[in-house]
Amino acid sequence: MDRGAEMTAAPIDIDEIGERAETMILALGAISAEPERLVRLFLSPEHRRAANLVADWMEDAGLSLSEDALGTVRGHLPGADPRRLLIGSHIDTVIDAGKYDGNLGVVAGILAVDHFSRAGRRLPFSIDVLAFGDEEGSRFTTTLNSSAAVAGVFNPARLDQADRDGVTLADALVAYGKNPAQIPAAAYKPGEAVAYVEVHIEQGPVLEARNQPLGVVTAIVGQTYFTVEILGEAGHAGTVPMSLRRDALAGAAEMIRLAEEMAREQRDVVATVGRLSVQPNASNVIPSHVVFTLDLRSTSDASRRRTAERFRAEARAIAERRHLGITLTQTRDTPTTLCDPRLQDALASSVASLGGEPLRLGSGAGHDGQSLAKLCPIGMLFVRCRGGVSHNPMEYASPRDMGYAVAALIRFIETFDPNGLA
Amino acid sequence: MDRGAEMTAAPIDIDEIGERAETMILALGAISAEPERLVRLFLSPEHRRAANLVADWMEDAGLSLSEDALGTVRGHLPGADPRRLLIGSHIDTVIDAGKYDGNLGVVAGILAVDHFSRAGRRLPFSIDVLAFGDEEGSRFTTTLNSSAAVAGVFNPARLDQADRDGVTLADALVAYGKNPAQIPAAAYKPGEAVAYVEVHIEQGPVLEARNQPLGVVTAIVGQTYFTVEILGEAGHAGTVPMSLRRDALAGAAEMIRLAEEMAREQRDVVATVGRLSVQPNASNVIPSHVVFTLDLRSTSDASRRRTAERFRAEARAIAERRHLGITLTQTRDTPTTLCDPRLQDALASSVASLGGEPLRLGSGAGHDGQSLAKLCPIGMLFVRCRGGVSHNPMEYASPRDMGYAVAALIRFIETFDPNGLA
Repeated sequence: MDRGAEMTAAPIDIDEIGERAETMILALGAISAEPERLVRLFLSPEHRRAANLVADWMEDAGLSLSEDALGTVRGHLPGADPRRLLIGSHIDTVIDAGKYDGNLGVVAGILAVDHFSRAGRRLPFSIDVLAFGDEEGSRFTTTLNSSAAVAGVFNPARLDQADRDGVTLADALVAYGKNPAQIPAAAYKPGEAVAYVEVHIEQGPVLEARNQPLGVVTAIVGQTYFTVEILGEAGHAGTVPMSLRRDALAGAAEMIRLAEEMAREQRDVVATVGRLSVQPNASNVIPSHVVFTLDLRSTSDASRRRTAERFRAEARAIAERRHLGITLTQTRDTPTTLCDPRLQDALASSVASLGGEPLRLGSGAGHDGQSLAKLCPIGMLFVRCRGGVSHNPMEYASPRDMGYAVAALIRFIETFDPNGLA
Repeated sequence: MDRGAEMTAAPIDIDEIGERAETMILALGAISAEPERLVRLFLSPEHRRAANLVADWMEDAGLSLSEDALGTVRGHLPGADPRRLLIGSHIDTVIDAGKYDGNLGVVAGILAVDHFSRAGRRLPFSIDVLAFGDEEGSRFTTTLNSSAAVAGVFNPARLDQADRDGVTLADALVAYGKNPAQIPAAAYKPGEAVAYVEVHIEQGPVLEARNQPLGVVTAIVGQTYFTVEILGEAGHAGTVPMSLRRDALAGAAEMIRLAEEMAREQRDVVATVGRLSVQPNASNVIPSHVVFTLDLRSTSDASRRRTAERFRAEARAIAERRHLGITLTQTRDTPTTLCDPRLQDALASSVASLGGEPLRLGSGAGHDGQSLAKLCPIGMLFVRCRGGVSHNPMEYASPRDMGYAVAALIRFIETFDPNGLA
């Protein structure tokens, strides 16, 4: 797949379309709240500027524009059938972000539609390209609100949530020129949307390790988060015998090892202890208090829940044996979102038609598709990113890989049958 | 030993002398830089006030006063032989200290001498009671400078060390009214000091667990400190498979468990990881960088060094297996200081003469005796403290236990033979 000569016949210039994608990614990546790093938060002035740029590109690609009450930019391409294929991703970023996460999916959707508009072909179905605004959750404490509104599952209680400066989501929407009362109108009507597909960088190392530019996503992981608090007893590092210690950090270390071993045994679960703090945190004092987070993810709800239950039980047993207090607080429990098998097959065929291996893999990160799955079948196409690095200015996808992604999306649209998903 | 009826004959009123000790401890404990907690740093105005109070008590007890170039208050009781038994401890404190650590040893020395002065008995040897000023090292980065000066092993390079405000030890001494050029004169001449004994709270739970008010110290632990730095690779908590991770915290957890297990197997070593920091410390990011401290102590230099070497080797093997970088920096290596066996036996006899079990135990904490051991044989008597708690305002020794400690010191002096240590 690395040589254009191996491609099946197609009037798609992968290098040219990849360069166009890169130009657009760089233009979007220049829109930031800070000169030295990329920061583009939901409903910020930068969000407005990026939305305007995306709207301009959509118009150039022949899409008719609208913007809903949560700021999602929507470009509509009418086809013979008014039922729509939705193509989308997000244009908000984390703090000190890379340029590709989310933005590439919006760019790919616009470039794919542009391909058909230029050819003057009327498709047998309609397309909406969607640019969501809060996939990252970097401003408010919740996430996926704009895609939830589109899917008709927005929770109005979230309007009262405040950002770090105390500005509520409702106030931020009004300041952005929106009317929160119009949010229900953002939802598609039953039967209006037949499928949702999204192109996204992998944000992991699997495609690079397998030497493939593209992969078909099987599912978006379910997530269980715990905050674990361990209470021991402080003591002098020299005078308290090992047998009389109640060392909170030694107990936490045993639990961190447990989480890692469980995930390795379970194979389809990943477990991460990413945050940990120690009190009093002095070299010559036995730690009395440790707090750490545990992030469990799996594309199998059964595996994830079994692992969470086992961790709960075994961590409690470790604490009991060590005479430590333990509080396990489950702070999140999101089920797995499956990608539709027919959409997976169709995306795999389009990858194969370009000469690629139709590799399938789970998504370890969350995506707007988790909201859209409540509306219609979803599919996702992953794009190789260098070193698997994401949420980092070093994030990078090559123009050629981006070209392959747009080409695969075009192939997918060419063969898409809205009746095949009924 | 809990019933006075079981005491051997002695004109010592343990309760009365314990109450005197408590009154003195409370008076010293009121001398602090802060109204809400006890803070008394080396060469501070509080040090001056505490030194003056100690000097007043020494005079009342019949001791003739001097103060050396490092601020050590010295009270001399001349006996038939000019050779001296040194009795001392320190009057500086940690930040947010208890009242007993150090201070009790100075009070006990003064009360023991007072016992003989009141009886009008001239002892066959002389006594110096010493109140040192920097055992805790809470102001400057080094410790035991005042006892080192007395022992003739003060390192002049330490005069250039600065406190948090940039004041050097030399400047602080001048501001305290001292002349650093006079430090060599603080040292005892060869043969002048025949032994050093110190009464100190245990700062650990052993005496309480054994239901004994007093214990005889066998040795002051040697210490090896490491700073361990682990370098892994940050990554998305959802997208990086377990097999491709280089998780610095998971590696550190394995090393923390290793240190604990080694100490438990070795039996005469204690190992503490007291400080640990994680980068980037976000719940959904695989930790890339962990730094932790390891504090190894033992009364056996061979056991401590064997454990340190084993930790070094096995930690490196863990890092290698996990593809992590590791830097092990040894930040301290202090050998064990043995208490003189004859002084141990004499202290044990004095404890037994009061009806106590002559329990022997190591000191897990450092003490001024580590300096004095370079001058003469040393001995230490530990006093039970509630819950083993020290370096904490909850630190507590009962008046009765303090009374036993002074009584044991008196019995020790009564039987002390300066020629028995030759």
